[in-house]
Amino acid sequence: MPAMIPELLRRFLAVLFACSALSVSSQIDYVEDSTLIRAVYDAALTRGEAYENLRSLCKDVGHRLSGSPGAEKAVAWAARRMEAAGLENVRLQPVTVPHWERGAPERCILLTTGDTLDVLALGGSVPTEGVLEAEVVKFSSLNALNEAPEASLSGKIAFLDQPMNPKLIDTFNAYGSCAGARVNGPSAAARKGAAAFVMRSVTLRADDFPHTGVLFYDRETDSIPAFALSTNSAFRLGEALRDNGTARISLYSDCRRLPDAPSHNVIGELRGTEFPDDEGVRMAKVITVGGHLDSWDVGEGAHDDGAGVVQALEVLRLFKLLNIRPRHTLRCVFFMNEENGSRGAKAYAEACREAGETHLAAMESDRGGFAPRGFHVDGADRYIDALRAYLPLFEPYFVHVIKRGYGGVDINPLRAENVPLIGVVPDSQRYFDVHHSANDVFENVNKRELELGAAGMASLIYLIDKYGFPEKALR
Amino acid sequence: MPAMIPELLRRFLAVLFACSALSVSSQIDYVEDSTLIRAVYDAALTRGEAYENLRSLCKDVGHRLSGSPGAEKAVAWAARRMEAAGLENVRLQPVTVPHWERGAPERCILLTTGDTLDVLALGGSVPTEGVLEAEVVKFSSLNALNEAPEASLSGKIAFLDQPMNPKLIDTFNAYGSCAGARVNGPSAAARKGAAAFVMRSVTLRADDFPHTGVLFYDRETDSIPAFALSTNSAFRLGEALRDNGTARISLYSDCRRLPDAPSHNVIGELRGTEFPDDEGVRMAKVITVGGHLDSWDVGEGAHDDGAGVVQALEVLRLFKLLNIRPRHTLRCVFFMNEENGSRGAKAYAEACREAGETHLAAMESDRGGFAPRGFHVDGADRYIDALRAYLPLFEPYFVHVIKRGYGGVDINPLRAENVPLIGVVPDSQRYFDVHHSANDVFENVNKRELELGAAGMASLIYLIDKYGFPEKALR
Repeated sequence: MPAMIPELLRRFLAVLFACSALSVSSQIDYVEDSTLIRAVYDAALTRGEAYENLRSLCKDVGHRLSGSPGAEKAVAWAARRMEAAGLENVRLQPVTVPHWERGAPERCILLTTGDTLDVLALGGSVPTEGVLEAEVVKFSSLNALNEAPEASLSGKIAFLDQPMNPKLIDTFNAYGSCAGARVNGPSAAARKGAAAFVMRSVTLRADDFPHTGVLFYDRETDSIPAFALSTNSAFRLGEALRDNGTARISLYSDCRRLPDAPSHNVIGELRGTEFPDDEGVRMAKVITVGGHLDSWDVGEGAHDDGAGVVQALEVLRLFKLLNIRPRHTLRCVFFMNEENGSRGAKAYAEACREAGETHLAAMESDRGGFAPRGFHVDGADRYIDALRAYLPLFEPYFVHVIKRGYGGVDINPLRAENVPLIGVVPDSQRYFDVHHSANDVFENVNKRELELGAAGMASLIYLIDKYGFPEKALR
Repeated sequence: MPAMIPELLRRFLAVLFACSALSVSSQIDYVEDSTLIRAVYDAALTRGEAYENLRSLCKDVGHRLSGSPGAEKAVAWAARRMEAAGLENVRLQPVTVPHWERGAPERCILLTTGDTLDVLALGGSVPTEGVLEAEVVKFSSLNALNEAPEASLSGKIAFLDQPMNPKLIDTFNAYGSCAGARVNGPSAAARKGAAAFVMRSVTLRADDFPHTGVLFYDRETDSIPAFALSTNSAFRLGEALRDNGTARISLYSDCRRLPDAPSHNVIGELRGTEFPDDEGVRMAKVITVGGHLDSWDVGEGAHDDGAGVVQALEVLRLFKLLNIRPRHTLRCVFFMNEENGSRGAKAYAEACREAGETHLAAMESDRGGFAPRGFHVDGADRYIDALRAYLPLFEPYFVHVIKRGYGGVDINPLRAENVPLIGVVPDSQRYFDVHHSANDVFENVNKRELELGAAGMASLIYLIDKYGFPEKALR
């Protein structure tokens, strides 16, 4: 049947459809909005400060794991930058965070050959307490490890050699299952009696850089030392096992868990013209935009998530620069402790609840500062439909994805409020090249890609602030 | 009115429109094609050879300006790789190319301060013949230079300090006007009596790497030595002029133009099942896919255009690997001399004409090996409409652009044939960071981005080969 539709009718229907799609937010002023969005992009690309802010965060502060002196330096840095950007109500929100230290550099030696393997302790790991030597048993997945006979790993080292699936175009989909193996693998190995756990780093590259990341010990099981090997080192260990049928390695780590430490989320605002916090009559309506200030303790946390925090700050800066007065209060939140506890995320949502604040939307940038592709939205269909109606406005900027997906770890606790949670989606191809490794440094962030991301975020927030969402009328 | 369309009608129209859009190529077998395209991407991402081919071209051959020993090494390398990939009818097509050599490293000194400025001669430049010292006169555009009073630059050095426009989202749009200034600036300066020409490098980055590129001397005017300064050096020269009102620099270059040299395009094929060259009854129908083998004589020509040639080869390799027998002859062409003469492009089009071959389509990859965004199409509306109907098949791969645009320098001479010329469009943000500079090296190419580009190219060529174009019926 479709082939039978005459061309003229087809064109008429095409125009009708284009109009009806926009009718979801029938009040969209295409001319005004496209002009404003052009101004946002121009400002981000010619008068942006995100890149220099990121340089300062990476080079003047450096990495900043929760509880570390770097994290506290970052908190002070963030408050200063928010003040300098002219944000209102800049404040520190107390958060109690886990405190783990890596200690002296880890060591791993393939005893068969004497080769040094490149290794990092996983975040939260217990130390080896001296050098630990043992035979290695390899598993290709967490399931395989879980199915090993009871006590079959007694005194041995479990080696989880699971590559990311290169066929998945969105690399975050490939990250999912591997990250689960990292988080739960150490206790799974301990349940089978293992003395330690090593895993292939979660990256799609073949190189010599191990990638750390958080683990969670099962309380019922002994905690055993856990490590990530670089992909090249994992390959060498796998080769040794294949060639000799057996392999022994030595492991050393000096890490430690310290008592929880005081820290802070850092918050700044642009007060809304129609829904200010002190209005009293109406409920406060807030749009939160954020990233996380903490990072792993290797590299500089440039993409993860320095990029996200400087972009969130840039969103509010662009509003000020262009003299856009938001109707709702725009709140920039630099969350503490995304990497190993999400304590900042929980503290923020709890504080909002206690203050009786309601959100119109929340947005998070925590997938790197790469060329923007669009946004994932976690929430009711009507939110997603309304946001998709804005897609034509973004076509000139190569932003083409608005669809259902995950918002972000830091805004996720706001889910209870049933607000749309919006995750910024940059191109994902290079993210796991650097993620949680020594390569996550400022030099690996492209200025324009970072700026385009901030401009896209500011543009979507401008539209949300202006039009709200259907069936959640603003008045 | 749009707002009055009830939701159910809107949804019905949406479905109808989606169907009618596809009706342009109403025979599209969505299930079969999406399955095949998935297989193409899987193969490219798990059994691809583009990246290792690029490593070999960059590291075993290196840069390869037309007429250089590197270019001849590249020709032999290319023929071997095509044979190794199992292409048919691998052959060298003779091309006579310009031959220019850079000679000893260039030097530029800001005499006011004694600072060395980072500089490269433009391709094709005459030498300074000893050290040339003169006063600098700055212009902000080629127009401003053209409007300078006659003879006003006598004995001086024209300095064209024109930045790329950072507001243009597709950086190739910003490249256009700056490249024109590079090509025509030296003779424009000579017409006003200038002794030499220096320009700010055509890049959006602030760094110390000059970017070379071709110039064309007007035959009516004396040829003067011409150079590109790194953006940081251009900034320093501009500062000196502003602070002191005047600045003198010294320039030295040792480059030379040699007699034209023999070289080759390198060609290999997969013979079509329905339109083989030796059919005799029907006209031969060819789909050409290519890039250019030559590069500038700095860096390794990794993105420009090593990426393009290894992707073109990968397209045919993927067809073989997946046992897809094309109906039309797929021809992989590595063009010689794109950078400074386009002699290979002209020779290829001329040879096709002489052989009476007709093309179904031609595709070129020459915008770097970055994450693919889509395709530009130069040709009749019916070609573009037909190709746009395939967009839903590419959505899972983040390929979202199919629209009117430029095909490519090397396929452009096929325009006379009225075939659709298809330019591969990767993300453009990082291209001019490395273009024509020492930074265009293998290490700056991401494996997955390169592979995704090749997979997208192979997938679109599969669809073109299968369905052809409307009003140009295959039978």
